Amino acid sequence: MSVALTCLQSFACFGGTVSFYEHGSQVCRSPMRFAVYQPPQAQIESVPVVYFLSGLTCTEENFMAKAGAQRYAAELGLMLVVPDTSPRHTGTPTEDADWDLGTGAGFYVDATQAPWHTHYQMYRYVTVELPALIAQEFPAKPEAQSICGHSMGGHGALICALRNPGRYRCVSALAPIGAPMRCPWGEKAFSHYLGSDRNTWKVYDASELVLNTSGCCPILIDQGLQDQFLSEQLKPELFEQACIQAGCDLTLRLHPHYDHSYYFIASFIGEHLQFHAQYLRA
Amino acid sequence: MSVALTCLQSFACFGGTVSFYEHGSQVCRSPMRFAVYQPPQAQIESVPVVYFLSGLTCTEENFMAKAGAQRYAAELGLMLVVPDTSPRHTGTPTEDADWDLGTGAGFYVDATQAPWHTHYQMYRYVTVELPALIAQEFPAKPEAQSICGHSMGGHGALICALRNPGRYRCVSALAPIGAPMRCPWGEKAFSHYLGSDRNTWKVYDASELVLNTSGCCPILIDQGLQDQFLSEQLKPELFEQACIQAGCDLTLRLHPHYDHSYYFIASFIGEHLQFHAQYLRA
Repeated sequence: MSVALTCLQSFACFGGTVSFYEHGSQVCRSPMRFAVYQPPQAQIESVPVVYFLSGLTCTEENFMAKAGAQRYAAELGLMLVVPDTSPRHTGTPTEDADWDLGTGAGFYVDATQAPWHTHYQMYRYVTVELPALIAQEFPAKPEAQSICGHSMGGHGALICALRNPGRYRCVSALAPIGAPMRCPWGEKAFSHYLGSDRNTWKVYDASELVLNTSGCCPILIDQGLQDQFLSEQLKPELFEQACIQAGCDLTLRLHPHYDHSYYFIASFIGEHLQFHAQYLRA
Repeated sequence: MSVALTCLQSFACFGGTVSFYEHGSQVCRSPMRFAVYQPPQAQIESVPVVYFLSGLTCTEENFMAKAGAQRYAAELGLMLVVPDTSPRHTGTPTEDADWDLGTGAGFYVDATQAPWHTHYQMYRYVTVELPALIAQEFPAKPEAQSICGHSMGGHGALICALRNPGRYRCVSALAPIGAPMRCPWGEKAFSHYLGSDRNTWKVYDASELVLNTSGCCPILIDQGLQDQFLSEQLKPELFEQACIQAGCDLTLRLHPHYDHSYYFIASFIGEHLQFHAQYLRA
């Protein structure tokens, strides 16, 4: 498989460029797609990078098309990098059978169990392979990066930051799955990708990781109180309790009226990017 | 058919609410859908209304999901009203055969020709029936309204404003079809909806109307120079020439790099809503 980076589409946007790419991923042994917003500042200098991890069923396109983040990224001089949420069309049996497992549902873990372990290596993909590619191919400041995500991607952002102290200047999440070992989405995904030994799940559970981290970057979380997944799947109170116990720097904001949709993401992504810019520029 | 207004879905967004409605349209003799963004200010007072007319293939959802307009509308205290681009599922023969005729392609005209004339009455729908419904059911200042649109909807916005002096405080368009009688999209739609007598087309052609209007509100147009439809379909230069001849208040801005997509709309919708607010608050 070629590892070459192919630009599939490119759009001018707020003085910068939204582009969609495909490349041959070594760790996923599969073509992978991602989107990049390069702000106008990237035409003349290297800029900090914010990774955005999307939620269940999303591709690399949803956030770019619906969140309205480019305006803020252009103002703040931030590059946005948005990977797809899983490998696709890998031939893995049942990969398209469920919307919350396989395609569109990589859960940002490195699968250890058949048939998933051949291609579903999203943790190493988003923490190692993709950042190396971005550093090589784009005008990015590799030492200035941070990470953000929504729902399944909020879980992803939190575990990437908690497992790699010093790698990300800060982390933020919109309606994240806060304790995946203790909710149906997480239990289903982890049991298939990681097997039945729950001890192996702990390195992918933010509420477990935060209790054992050696150093935790600032965390911002926004959560809508009309979110249909709040009490069964997201459980921000469990992550909050763990952060209090661990003494972590968490800001958790609860918003009446807001649900789980992109209208919620769009409403708060500007404040998230301002939060990121404050640490990325420091 | 019931004319009752049904709220299908509602989402908190930037302190206000995005809602999707269906009602029984009298003029289209069909259910019609539209979207409304009510800014936070609408909770305590009546606010001005900006109508947004969408382009070919769009529904009432595209603009709300992709343009990022709610942030600006919330800041400026503007209600946004976005109708669907045609009746749907009317049983009109061939309504779904072409993407640029029938469903998703009402072209904001009142059809006079069979089989379209029974349901395809989008001009009266957007200029008369929908504004009356909005005035009755929402906290709108009916005397403070303006209109905007993209592509086919830019054509729609221009003809609505030009045919109704005093009705709209201003009009703006992103990549509008500027002279529909002189481009393939317009010629196809007008010949089917209005028949072969081109004299009957002139009341739906902005470049014709502007030569005979008794009073023209301020007009803002943005156009990307990488727009794939620029030279064959949009032809802003024809509308510009007509405005110069008529002495109309036109600002036409040409933007290198930008194409016809929602990434273009998102990049400039903020300036459009600021343009509208300046006249709606006067």
